[in-house]
Amino acid sequence: MMRVRKLVNFVAAACALAIGIAVPATGAQAEDGYDLWLRNAPLDAEQVERLGLPARLVRTALVEGAQSPSPTMNVATAELMHGLNSLAAAHPVERGSGPGRAIRLDCPESRADGDAAFTIRTVDGDIRIGGNSDLACLYGAYALLRELSLGTDPDTLDIDSAPAMPLRLLNHWDNPDGHVERGYAGRSIFDWWHLPERLDQRMIDYARANASVGINGAVVNNVNARAFMLEPRYIEKLARLADAWRPYGIRVYLSARFSAPTEIDGGDIGRLETADPLDPQVRAWWQAKADEIYAAIPDFGGFLVKANSEGQPGPQDYGRTHADGANMLAQAIGDRGTVIWRAFVYSAQDETDRAKQAYEEFVPLDGAFADNVIVQVKNGAIDFQPREPFHPMFGAMPQTRLMLEVQITKEYLGFASHLAFLAPMWREVLDADTGRGGSVAEVVAPAGMAGVANTGSDRNWSGSDFDQANWYAFGRLAWDPALSSDTIAREWLAQTFNREEAFLAQTAPMMLSSRETVARYMTPLGLAHLMATGHHYGPAPWVCDLDRPEWNPCYYHRADSDGIGFDRTATGSNALGQYAPAIADTWSDPATMDEHYLLWFHHLDWDYRTQSGLPLWDELVQRYDQGVTEVDTMVHTWDDLSAYVDPERHRAVAENLRIQQREANWWRDASIAYWQSLNGLPLPQGARAPSRDLEHYRSLSFPEAPGQ
Amino acid sequence: MMRVRKLVNFVAAACALAIGIAVPATGAQAEDGYDLWLRNAPLDAEQVERLGLPARLVRTALVEGAQSPSPTMNVATAELMHGLNSLAAAHPVERGSGPGRAIRLDCPESRADGDAAFTIRTVDGDIRIGGNSDLACLYGAYALLRELSLGTDPDTLDIDSAPAMPLRLLNHWDNPDGHVERGYAGRSIFDWWHLPERLDQRMIDYARANASVGINGAVVNNVNARAFMLEPRYIEKLARLADAWRPYGIRVYLSARFSAPTEIDGGDIGRLETADPLDPQVRAWWQAKADEIYAAIPDFGGFLVKANSEGQPGPQDYGRTHADGANMLAQAIGDRGTVIWRAFVYSAQDETDRAKQAYEEFVPLDGAFADNVIVQVKNGAIDFQPREPFHPMFGAMPQTRLMLEVQITKEYLGFASHLAFLAPMWREVLDADTGRGGSVAEVVAPAGMAGVANTGSDRNWSGSDFDQANWYAFGRLAWDPALSSDTIAREWLAQTFNREEAFLAQTAPMMLSSRETVARYMTPLGLAHLMATGHHYGPAPWVCDLDRPEWNPCYYHRADSDGIGFDRTATGSNALGQYAPAIADTWSDPATMDEHYLLWFHHLDWDYRTQSGLPLWDELVQRYDQGVTEVDTMVHTWDDLSAYVDPERHRAVAENLRIQQREANWWRDASIAYWQSLNGLPLPQGARAPSRDLEHYRSLSFPEAPGQ
Repeated sequence: MMRVRKLVNFVAAACALAIGIAVPATGAQAEDGYDLWLRNAPLDAEQVERLGLPARLVRTALVEGAQSPSPTMNVATAELMHGLNSLAAAHPVERGSGPGRAIRLDCPESRADGDAAFTIRTVDGDIRIGGNSDLACLYGAYALLRELSLGTDPDTLDIDSAPAMPLRLLNHWDNPDGHVERGYAGRSIFDWWHLPERLDQRMIDYARANASVGINGAVVNNVNARAFMLEPRYIEKLARLADAWRPYGIRVYLSARFSAPTEIDGGDIGRLETADPLDPQVRAWWQAKADEIYAAIPDFGGFLVKANSEGQPGPQDYGRTHADGANMLAQAIGDRGTVIWRAFVYSAQDETDRAKQAYEEFVPLDGAFADNVIVQVKNGAIDFQPREPFHPMFGAMPQTRLMLEVQITKEYLGFASHLAFLAPMWREVLDADTGRGGSVAEVVAPAGMAGVANTGSDRNWSGSDFDQANWYAFGRLAWDPALSSDTIAREWLAQTFNREEAFLAQTAPMMLSSRETVARYMTPLGLAHLMATGHHYGPAPWVCDLDRPEWNPCYYHRADSDGIGFDRTATGSNALGQYAPAIADTWSDPATMDEHYLLWFHHLDWDYRTQSGLPLWDELVQRYDQGVTEVDTMVHTWDDLSAYVDPERHRAVAENLRIQQREANWWRDASIAYWQSLNGLPLPQGARAPSRDLEHYRSLSFPEAPGQ
Repeated sequence: MMRVRKLVNFVAAACALAIGIAVPATGAQAEDGYDLWLRNAPLDAEQVERLGLPARLVRTALVEGAQSPSPTMNVATAELMHGLNSLAAAHPVERGSGPGRAIRLDCPESRADGDAAFTIRTVDGDIRIGGNSDLACLYGAYALLRELSLGTDPDTLDIDSAPAMPLRLLNHWDNPDGHVERGYAGRSIFDWWHLPERLDQRMIDYARANASVGINGAVVNNVNARAFMLEPRYIEKLARLADAWRPYGIRVYLSARFSAPTEIDGGDIGRLETADPLDPQVRAWWQAKADEIYAAIPDFGGFLVKANSEGQPGPQDYGRTHADGANMLAQAIGDRGTVIWRAFVYSAQDETDRAKQAYEEFVPLDGAFADNVIVQVKNGAIDFQPREPFHPMFGAMPQTRLMLEVQITKEYLGFASHLAFLAPMWREVLDADTGRGGSVAEVVAPAGMAGVANTGSDRNWSGSDFDQANWYAFGRLAWDPALSSDTIAREWLAQTFNREEAFLAQTAPMMLSSRETVARYMTPLGLAHLMATGHHYGPAPWVCDLDRPEWNPCYYHRADSDGIGFDRTATGSNALGQYAPAIADTWSDPATMDEHYLLWFHHLDWDYRTQSGLPLWDELVQRYDQGVTEVDTMVHTWDDLSAYVDPERHRAVAENLRIQQREANWWRDASIAYWQSLNGLPLPQGARAPSRDLEHYRSLSFPEAPGQ
């Protein structure tokens, strides 16, 4: 598409020049973002020359000696052919024989998982991709195309790459009716209605995109699961997906509803009166169900379970523990797959600080989980806020495999319209020293990472072009948590938009600071959970009257006429006590701590002096203002980059940035108006008054907000 | 995209040949159907040679003497440049000066509506598009590209074309939350949430597709309307759409909820206690609302209203007539636009045959409607069934402008998966002689046609590739109801898939018979309304116990041990009496009538001898079997055409046909099993028994069926 557009643009521009009119962009062959980072846009002449392609690809694209390539190796071959020809297309190379550069795929073709490590080296001019499985060669093929797309000199390739963790999964909160919980990119990409007969091409392109960044599994349905997705008719649908994704190394997983045995028939066993995990009939029901699934999908990944959380059924309904529940499913699955049990639990009956509850429920169970159980823990102890300190469970369960769950879809960071590149946020948690013998990245290395997907039916997959970067970043970080955010941003930008340094030098810094910008205008200084109820769109720090205390923003900010913040030190909830002492120490003194977490851990007077010397109130307003100003800068930066980006995507991003600009001001103004209603303080000198009064902001309602 | 694919395929195939392996299709640059019939696929060398392009386009793409082209003329110019270059791309022509062929756009640039007529002539080698408005030139530009795409010799062009009716509208049953009632193509294409700031590129491409077939307006929201879409925030969103579509000649319309004055504020007037159309305050409310809309959208098309039908509010709630309601809105709009009032009404309290009710309510009002009111009448008197006789209101209201409403989305013809080309169905009603001085096409000529859209967020817009043909056919027939179905099918096939005669000769006949095939396996011999309740998916002729009699399939088929069919002659409901006597005569005698309407008008014994000489029961079974057999043939025909179609779309169509094959058998088997349960008759000799018993078919439930 890219090349067509270039050609069309070239001719149209030339024509326009000749007749002296401006040719408006119509939609003809417009860039639409569907190709994601897999565009393989044409290299310039010199780079193509260095590549020496495509003429020489022909000779060695197949593994020497192989009789019949595996489906995975076929994909690797085809991707290389397509990708290299695309890279070289603007300056086609003469075909011919002769001794040119060879590209060799040297991998023993096995279906054995586990060894996805690959090497890419240029030796005597030939490029060799090597590894111990066909999947390694597929990963290597994508990596080679990425390097060439970035403009890397093909004569200098010398790459050793291996995944840092075994499970690199997308979690789709997609309901079978097509609605996506916290989805801001249209409808679900999974067309359950027409499966198994009809397999949408998007399912192939989805697998390509995932495999290209190393993602190797997908939980295809919402953790708030419907039992009927375990019925035979859905297993049949799922099997078609599994068949389509197998060559790409993507395994399918299902969210399982814990009460399923009481809701749907289980083959010969029928429907039961209980889902008690220690009941022999229940165990037999799940055993039969697991066997039924594995008969259809031999490499089924396993079950993800949200139990006894936010109204979902679970083992506690029968007086059993999370371990009882998880181990029962683990036994049914055996060594064929994995049970992933979510630690995101909090209780309406529990007076404990919500931030402490998961730790209190799970840490005592350390060592009680079966070997094929993984406990999946969100990055922070609340819920995917713009910033949270790392979850205290990391490092606290040494005898349990823990998996890190992050949210790619931006439920709390501006939906699809705000530009917020999340790699820096995820790096923050991955890099965090747990104080218990390693970083979070080291803690989760034996398990993996899960990302709540931001995919949908929108042409650009993610609801906005820049949100594609978060899908990309998730995969790259799960493969290699040591990758810098800057590297990831530049990789993505170059492959997605433009590889020119003049473009990257402007846009990469904008991406890198973007999440901090959002945190500033939404929840500065460690504030959290201040958004509107239900849909989570926009600010509503004034909400104090919802049934459950921990649903209220007031519960989190605890602001009054004197001060603001949640005391989680020993004088308060002592959530700080759940961290290793060395770590807790760093957060215990507001005078020396990282102020990004200031009001997360401390309740402070409005006139408390922050590290800058300003009163807390002034500091807070200043940070809001900084956030707003930074969005203004992003708007102008992007506006000036139109020469580097096709007009369709340039306009789309520009329009999103204007939504973000309006909403950043809204967050700032509504928040300040509310804090002022409590503290009665004047604005710091020079600060602009909120453009409307508090009543206005309180009166806004958005029944049509998406994603709920 | 097409050219990229060709190039990629060429290189890949060449490579594959050289190394002796099959290259599997990955998703790279796959055909996805997004370009609809606007692909302008490259012509062959000889055709390009004849075209003499693109070199000569340059000189005369602008109107002579024009200083500043209108947005519409800019679009026409750009579309021609893009389209011609695309057509010629496989064999680029040398650029240069010299005397080559010119393409002239000779239209006075005015925004005056009404004269969309254009001519295309080749004179002395130059191609001249002429007309009396810039929109005429845009229509001419699309028509020229279509002709060239079909392979027409550019030296023989001699076209005079004018629209047969002024309004050619899509009706979108899209809700503001993104759900599409009776939508089978994903989510709504309208992104209300992000409008007005963000305008999706799809909105431009939508306008292009519509303009290319002459559609000139869109009602953007469901006739079951939400009042809040009349609020200022939605007017602002709508204005952005109107601005985007204006250059393409597309006017925006809104479905208006009649009770809106009681549900939302009306500016200074506020919210009222009544929506009585004769209440001065209500009249003032709507006047202010119309003024508010026209201030934002000067060419706003007007309101579409579903009133006092299926629970919608309307003037009858206040003891007023449809004319009272429509005229009140018409006065508010004045000569700025049109009120389109739907005649699709039926009442729970009315014992009258549902097929008679609209006629009885509306015909007495003939002459009572204001000049800027149009009454919109469905093609038949029930509801978009696979076959209905034309609506008796056509011709019966000579003093009222009547508009024809057809359904492009296939609510009753197999959703998105069954192949059913609807042009023959629409031709059936357009060609029908009303017996009152003209055909239906002639009756609606002063008003227009409305098509309930089948667009959605799916990559291919319509849920399946072949459903795009119905969107195309709707536009072409609204422009020119004299176009043959065969012409339309061939135009669409050639532009969408492949212009080779060997391909068209196989596929055009398949399309032309496809709707008859669906009618045979669903509702043969004039049966109707036999589908399942609510979602309308699959057969359920056994449903007899719903609250309202006319919701039950039993109400329509009236089958028992003796016979089947609805007696609508003088001995029955006498719906036949609503037709002109000459027409009623043709349907009054089952022995001589067109048997397609046999059981629509007559209740007959199972052993009644049809015109073939067979007993009715045998005839019925034979028609079911014929329908099923014809689907088998379609499956095989399409399977054999893989050489002509890209693999992605070929597979997608093939998979849909297999769904259709399964469901055709289901319709046949379930229907026959049910009729047998009533008549106790054995199957005719040679007929296959239903594969399951009736209880099986009755037990099926589909809570997840789409579109409800």
